[in-house]
Amino acid sequence: MILHDFLPSGNGYKIRLMLRFLGQEFSLTEYDITKGETRTDDFLNRINPVGRIPALEFEDGHVLVESNSVLLFLAEGTPWLPSDKWQRAAVTQWLFFEQYEHEPTVAVLRSWLSVKGMPDYGKALLPIKQAGAKNALGVMENRLKDHDWLVGDCCSIADIALYAYTHVADEAGIDMSVYPGITRWVARFATLPDYVPITWKP
Amino acid sequence: MILHDFLPSGNGYKIRLMLRFLGQEFSLTEYDITKGETRTDDFLNRINPVGRIPALEFEDGHVLVESNSVLLFLAEGTPWLPSDKWQRAAVTQWLFFEQYEHEPTVAVLRSWLSVKGMPDYGKALLPIKQAGAKNALGVMENRLKDHDWLVGDCCSIADIALYAYTHVADEAGIDMSVYPGITRWVARFATLPDYVPITWKP
Repeated sequence: MILHDFLPSGNGYKIRLMLRFLGQEFSLTEYDITKGETRTDDFLNRINPVGRIPALEFEDGHVLVESNSVLLFLAEGTPWLPSDKWQRAAVTQWLFFEQYEHEPTVAVLRSWLSVKGMPDYGKALLPIKQAGAKNALGVMENRLKDHDWLVGDCCSIADIALYAYTHVADEAGIDMSVYPGITRWVARFATLPDYVPITWKP
Repeated sequence: MILHDFLPSGNGYKIRLMLRFLGQEFSLTEYDITKGETRTDDFLNRINPVGRIPALEFEDGHVLVESNSVLLFLAEGTPWLPSDKWQRAAVTQWLFFEQYEHEPTVAVLRSWLSVKGMPDYGKALLPIKQAGAKNALGVMENRLKDHDWLVGDCCSIADIALYAYTHVADEAGIDMSVYPGITRWVARFATLPDYVPITWKP
């Protein structure tokens, strides 16, 4: 398998973590998204018409995109995705929460402040994004203040998806000391067998 | 079942359509999101800590939120969600695309122009949102120009999720005449058995 990716991306890191946890070998093809390398005609036609990484290319030619969709695909039939229908619903609920409430606030702030730089329209939006990030982290804290993991008693792809940008939320200018439940969960996650940091590549 | 909902919401409409297509009875409890009725302590504690509709409450007390997660839950084991693993991946791919690329552009523009009104920070963002909507609709058109449905040969929850806000994209100020594939698909969708318009309630 080839993972088309950009190393600082939390969305890409989700897939790197999942493949590593599952013991699946893969190679990395890197793109610099700050230089528009995923908006070329070749990338749009061959890899992802939406122009985004990560994209996971299989030997038979299938290409899967949308990081949380890829997590669901890879985790099916493994302990990373529960079989109980209510727990599955809780997992997908966190996955959509991540893409709607968390990534567009925490990850976008991190991109503006630490990866791609602030766009022209960013300054006016800063308080909106900061309030959104606070809301999203508040919802996570509410769960993690008295639970080890986001769903049930085990680490699932919900935790992988939310960990990706939460553990680097300081790079988004967010003071994480006010979220003790999240802080414990971030430390707990990093003790998982085969854990690798966001800078790791195969 | 009780669906906690706001009638103009496309996210709510997805669940109304799904329940109707599946022949499942439910009642509606309506909230006016323009008046903050989903941000009360009771709603946040009892229904959804994220403060959003739709939320589907079951007789046994379970409450499911995140519209596309609820679609996955309801469609499991029905023809609305394929069993083939690659088709399932294509379905969830469209569901995440909808919440990340389409809803935050098409639905937000519709909300600003036709539902809740334009917020202070909206004007500066208008060209960004319009460009995002154009990109998202372009990706849909690229599929629908020569296919009847978004995944495989059948209507799936991917179509339900994308139909909800696409069929009212004119209310977002978008000229849909430049998307003939989408326009045919919108007309095709409305011929499905048991189809009901967004204004319908049980």
